[in-house]
Amino acid sequence: MSKKVGSDIEIARQAKMKPIREVAGKLNIAEEHLIPYGHTKAKVSMEFVKSLKGKPDGKLILVTAINPTPAGEGKTTTTVGLGDGLNRIGKKTIICLREPSLGPCFGVKGGAAGGGYAQVVPMEDINLHFTGDFHAIGTAHNLLSALIDNHIYWGNELGFDARRIQWRRVMDMNDRALRAITNSLGGVANGFPREDGFDITVASEVMAIFCLATDIADLTKRLGNIIIGYTREKKPIYARDLKADGPMTVLLKDAIAPNLVQTLENNPAFIHGGPFANIAHGCNSVIATTTALKLADYVVTEAGFGADLGAEKFFDIKCRKAGLKPAAVVIVGTIRALKMHGGVAKEELGKENVEAVKKGAANLARHIQNVKKFGVQIVVALNRFSADTDAEIKAIRELCSGLGVDAFECNHWAEGGAGTEDLAKAVVALCDKPNNFAPLYPDEMPLWEKVKTIATSLYGAQDVIGDKVVRDRFHEFEKMGFGKYPVCMAKTQYSFSTDPNLKGAPSNHVVPIREIRLSAGAEFIVVICGEVMTMPGLPRVPSANHIKLNEKGEVEGLF
Amino acid sequence: MSKKVGSDIEIARQAKMKPIREVAGKLNIAEEHLIPYGHTKAKVSMEFVKSLKGKPDGKLILVTAINPTPAGEGKTTTTVGLGDGLNRIGKKTIICLREPSLGPCFGVKGGAAGGGYAQVVPMEDINLHFTGDFHAIGTAHNLLSALIDNHIYWGNELGFDARRIQWRRVMDMNDRALRAITNSLGGVANGFPREDGFDITVASEVMAIFCLATDIADLTKRLGNIIIGYTREKKPIYARDLKADGPMTVLLKDAIAPNLVQTLENNPAFIHGGPFANIAHGCNSVIATTTALKLADYVVTEAGFGADLGAEKFFDIKCRKAGLKPAAVVIVGTIRALKMHGGVAKEELGKENVEAVKKGAANLARHIQNVKKFGVQIVVALNRFSADTDAEIKAIRELCSGLGVDAFECNHWAEGGAGTEDLAKAVVALCDKPNNFAPLYPDEMPLWEKVKTIATSLYGAQDVIGDKVVRDRFHEFEKMGFGKYPVCMAKTQYSFSTDPNLKGAPSNHVVPIREIRLSAGAEFIVVICGEVMTMPGLPRVPSANHIKLNEKGEVEGLF
Repeated sequence: MSKKVGSDIEIARQAKMKPIREVAGKLNIAEEHLIPYGHTKAKVSMEFVKSLKGKPDGKLILVTAINPTPAGEGKTTTTVGLGDGLNRIGKKTIICLREPSLGPCFGVKGGAAGGGYAQVVPMEDINLHFTGDFHAIGTAHNLLSALIDNHIYWGNELGFDARRIQWRRVMDMNDRALRAITNSLGGVANGFPREDGFDITVASEVMAIFCLATDIADLTKRLGNIIIGYTREKKPIYARDLKADGPMTVLLKDAIAPNLVQTLENNPAFIHGGPFANIAHGCNSVIATTTALKLADYVVTEAGFGADLGAEKFFDIKCRKAGLKPAAVVIVGTIRALKMHGGVAKEELGKENVEAVKKGAANLARHIQNVKKFGVQIVVALNRFSADTDAEIKAIRELCSGLGVDAFECNHWAEGGAGTEDLAKAVVALCDKPNNFAPLYPDEMPLWEKVKTIATSLYGAQDVIGDKVVRDRFHEFEKMGFGKYPVCMAKTQYSFSTDPNLKGAPSNHVVPIREIRLSAGAEFIVVICGEVMTMPGLPRVPSANHIKLNEKGEVEGLF
Repeated sequence: MSKKVGSDIEIARQAKMKPIREVAGKLNIAEEHLIPYGHTKAKVSMEFVKSLKGKPDGKLILVTAINPTPAGEGKTTTTVGLGDGLNRIGKKTIICLREPSLGPCFGVKGGAAGGGYAQVVPMEDINLHFTGDFHAIGTAHNLLSALIDNHIYWGNELGFDARRIQWRRVMDMNDRALRAITNSLGGVANGFPREDGFDITVASEVMAIFCLATDIADLTKRLGNIIIGYTREKKPIYARDLKADGPMTVLLKDAIAPNLVQTLENNPAFIHGGPFANIAHGCNSVIATTTALKLADYVVTEAGFGADLGAEKFFDIKCRKAGLKPAAVVIVGTIRALKMHGGVAKEELGKENVEAVKKGAANLARHIQNVKKFGVQIVVALNRFSADTDAEIKAIRELCSGLGVDAFECNHWAEGGAGTEDLAKAVVALCDKPNNFAPLYPDEMPLWEKVKTIATSLYGAQDVIGDKVVRDRFHEFEKMGFGKYPVCMAKTQYSFSTDPNLKGAPSNHVVPIREIRLSAGAEFIVVICGEVMTMPGLPRVPSANHIKLNEKGEVEGLF
């Protein structure tokens, strides 16, 4: 960070936002198709979205990253910065991001709308209620939950086995007290007591469905396909058996339209949907991405976590299902983070250490090699920090060069789009190169083989293991007819292995599968390797303690 | 209903809505102060609300009703119809209504946005997510809940007695399974198991506070004053002790601005806030009402349930606290409902029965006499149904005349504002008459006496009774310094007594108090006389079963 930059919130407050109808106007979205939420946020009508069918698509660019470390990588800022850089060099570009979850804002300080001079605005709104999408998703989820217990209350005609109800409840809040509950207590009028629990809203299968649905009809079909429980005979019961798909669709009919906002440089950004990147696929909505591709020549989007999880799911789940063909991939890293992968402690990051950088770069190299396996063009973006030395940068450049990939320093955090011009030009050049994109495995591959393929060819693992119970579940899901679904890996984001402490590029490890879950509406099989937390808690001193409106009516303490 | 009228949803769909900025324009609200939510809903900025301070107030008209019966009274349609009628005769009028709750829409068919040709639109939006206010209120409530259990988890420095936590959780859903739960199960990481439960969002004290707050500073103060629990030594613990008032205010900062929509006749309507009418005061927000009074010459608003609960709380809680002075009161009734109060079964309502009407009119007469005690001018509105006979109408007119009150037939359901012109003219005349409005009891009266005053002078009761435990609570709250608060009666809406089957105007009954609760943030004492349901359930065949989007993308089955 080469110059003094204010805090994210200070910069965001100084932003000269344009009326959203002007931003939309540049994309030729007529005012009647723009559904405003205030003056700086809007949804684009589904009628308009539909009208774009048949138009040519722009180029799709994925921003992904090395395995995250406490040093930070800046994937979202790079996505925003690259979008601004592309617009700056005259390329009509839209960025597509995930919506942040409200609950975590009250836990640990920090929003999810970029940072420095690479932000999307209005950032307070985006981080809080925004256009209400997550509230709608939570309500649709909880309506289904209420319908299940109501059905049992009135006689349980469908024969739910209360021990085998798969559908929990959700809330957009960090609330550990709700992780495991007993519900329906208090006597006859309140139903039959049973074990239950809440996940955070972003972990809902409704969220994953919302982000993978191609239109409203597809949304309804997928909602109906959710498996909510089983009978004593283990026969699945679907959401459509409770006629829940209709009212859930009604609750989601406004939310499903993509949200348009702008970057600090007044370039358009779609921010829509935000599924978990472990038990779901971690990308913004298909509807937002496909709409953006019709409206711009370049679309920059990001995926959750590092490339081992995020990019793999982007390719194998989102692109496969939505028929998307990414033109280029940007892998983001920082010298600091690579040093940590090379064994340097956080406190020592300020000192030059070329050897540690070289050692840690094995992590970057593995990601480059992995992403190549999907047949796409690659470039590396190095988020520049002021302590980075020329020798350290040179080491990374040489490594990338040896792998046939260019690496560019980026300074969007301090300079906005001006700080990513070189990267933007390189991306444009890459997009014109041949592209042989294909998912890693075919639909027809058996589920266990799919997991093994990912683990051995991407994670560097020797093998995949699992108890008989777990292995039997794979066959069960195949017998039920779900064998053609992609797998959705849920493992630690901090390592290629399942051990978060194994930095760099570990090899010959073993991936133990603890559990698998079927998301029949989202159409993937979640493969859980390790602990997965679907309802966070608040820390001892939550950031809520410092959040308030100041005398000017501005939000303080949120960022 | 003298002519063939389509269903509410058919009429609403045919509505020629004006852009909301045009509706706002007629009120001289500049576009920069209008925060649009789509093209037909908007919030009015708090900056604009503040700028109105010092401007003269219009006349405030309350629409209330006889005790409800299954025959229906049409209080909301009369509010809308009267607003349209006043505008029609050239009086600049705004109506103020409560926001409907989303959850119940999926239980029993029927929205809450008026009916026939007296509706507010867009009705599907108003009945579902609207502008997200209830989601914001629910989130603010549940953040406080999460902060409580988080505080206990990290050491319970404030010394909560887990058995004495007063703050439950909320959800805008009819979900009986959540009425009584055990939370924090599952081991060390999830906290200390304790009894808990959910109420529907509209029952939240945050909702009552939201509706009584005069501005954002007052909102924050009241949120901080919420008593969330007690220590083992029975010392109260406040929301401000957890620093929850700041982040809760941030979550409510957009919601607190009033929502502007329009009637079918394109007249302005504020729809804002919707507290329960039993454990809370059942009126739309003070901010919406006071804003409307600055913008129009006449403001028509309604209160929940019959006048015994709704009007009393409107006067004794809302008007007392907000310094409002109602100019006139409209008491709504129907011949059908009065017949039911006279002992006629629902199936027999089609037949002329003047004697039953006269007998049941005792209910109307009691309400008229009651409302007079507040020193306001009164008129009666009879919602005309086609089966009503001239003799029946005449009987009511004579009764009213004997009490010094005019009664007018209204036909807004079939004719819109044209059907209430006579009523509108009468209301205008009343507003110019002397007005000696005063609450029923002074702040200084002891709490028990306040209850007794209401019960004896309005309900016709002989006395109020309660166990020693309950009576002691009154003294406790007084000792804690809350004796000056008004009382908020929670009893059946169907009778002046606490027995829902005692129709007409029962006398000499006794009002048993089961429990009292302190709403220290809302600043009232809830006095519970009978069963109070704060989390509804779904029926055997919920209306959700029939709700869906049709091929045109319209909502079906909601109304």
